[in-house]
Amino acid sequence: MKRIITISREFGSAGRTIGKQLAERLGYKYYDKELVRQVADETGFDPSYIEETGEHSAGRSSLSYVFSTPGVPGIMKGMSASDFLWCIQHNVILKLADQEPCVIVGRCADFILRDRDDVLNVFIHAPMQARAERIVRLYGESDKSPEQRLKEKDKRRRNNYKHYTGQDWGVSQNYHITLDSAAVGIDRCVDILEGLAR
Amino acid sequence: MKRIITISREFGSAGRTIGKQLAERLGYKYYDKELVRQVADETGFDPSYIEETGEHSAGRSSLSYVFSTPGVPGIMKGMSASDFLWCIQHNVILKLADQEPCVIVGRCADFILRDRDDVLNVFIHAPMQARAERIVRLYGESDKSPEQRLKEKDKRRRNNYKHYTGQDWGVSQNYHITLDSAAVGIDRCVDILEGLAR
Repeated sequence: MKRIITISREFGSAGRTIGKQLAERLGYKYYDKELVRQVADETGFDPSYIEETGEHSAGRSSLSYVFSTPGVPGIMKGMSASDFLWCIQHNVILKLADQEPCVIVGRCADFILRDRDDVLNVFIHAPMQARAERIVRLYGESDKSPEQRLKEKDKRRRNNYKHYTGQDWGVSQNYHITLDSAAVGIDRCVDILEGLAR
Repeated sequence: MKRIITISREFGSAGRTIGKQLAERLGYKYYDKELVRQVADETGFDPSYIEETGEHSAGRSSLSYVFSTPGVPGIMKGMSASDFLWCIQHNVILKLADQEPCVIVGRCADFILRDRDDVLNVFIHAPMQARAERIVRLYGESDKSPEQRLKEKDKRRRNNYKHYTGQDWGVSQNYHITLDSAAVGIDRCVDILEGLAR
């Protein structure tokens, strides 16, 4: 029985959809936007800033630093905004995992919760073409090609993961199971993960 | 319905056991030693040489080259023994895949069969400690520590895979599913793969 499922995913691979359906079936809490809201509450940052920065902040030039702000512990003063955000996210994830069974999407939760033995770590990916079709269907076109958008977003997630965990994103050994959602199918991915969680 | 299952695996991760049980359940042929025998028949190499060299020959200094030998096509003369072996293995795997449904363990079969759409590509891994215990139980102790043996063998498989496929071994995107056999359990791995194959 796994109390916590972490889902890491390539952009456009349906990892969030799989996580949401899995949480519903298991009767678990689902954390994605909700996690962002909690981090916002603890930091005073705007939720949209957290959503954008929380998963791919590392390696970007940032002039924002944490100065003396009421409520910020002394040890965090002088940190870059992205490192500060990492620390808060880290603590929020540890706290949520202690509270009740949940599915957590993204945010290096697999690494943050690595010392627990009631966690199932999942990585979802899919071939470029399937993901390109999916993001155009879900989010529409933009001035960049879908392939370009996928590459950029994945690169930022990869860099962020490497920066904060020292590990390589998407390497199978970091996860208990990885699935190609296009080959396996979304429903079947949820079936398999539900079976492993129970 | 997948006619062909390829299983790549870390040393000591029970990938062969999983492949064998899966083949039995599906009523598929199982190729591992049998593949070695077929390559031996086609090349005249000793089976034990093929078994040792076929999965981790690349990058090793080798003074053996293929000279003018009856039965060797002209184009292969002058190749290193390991490149020659790769070509023969490549052709044997393509031929076997055409013949009847099968499970093929190792030998870059996932890459060799990448243009078919009736193939399920699997990677099996497990944490170092679980694998160390397994190889000592199955193969006994040796003068090297189990961890050292695992690292060396995996490194050779990784180098061989990179050399002949240009891809990274164990990266989830190269497989339809990857499984941690220690966390998931051998029987459950077989269950999941059987479900995906049917």
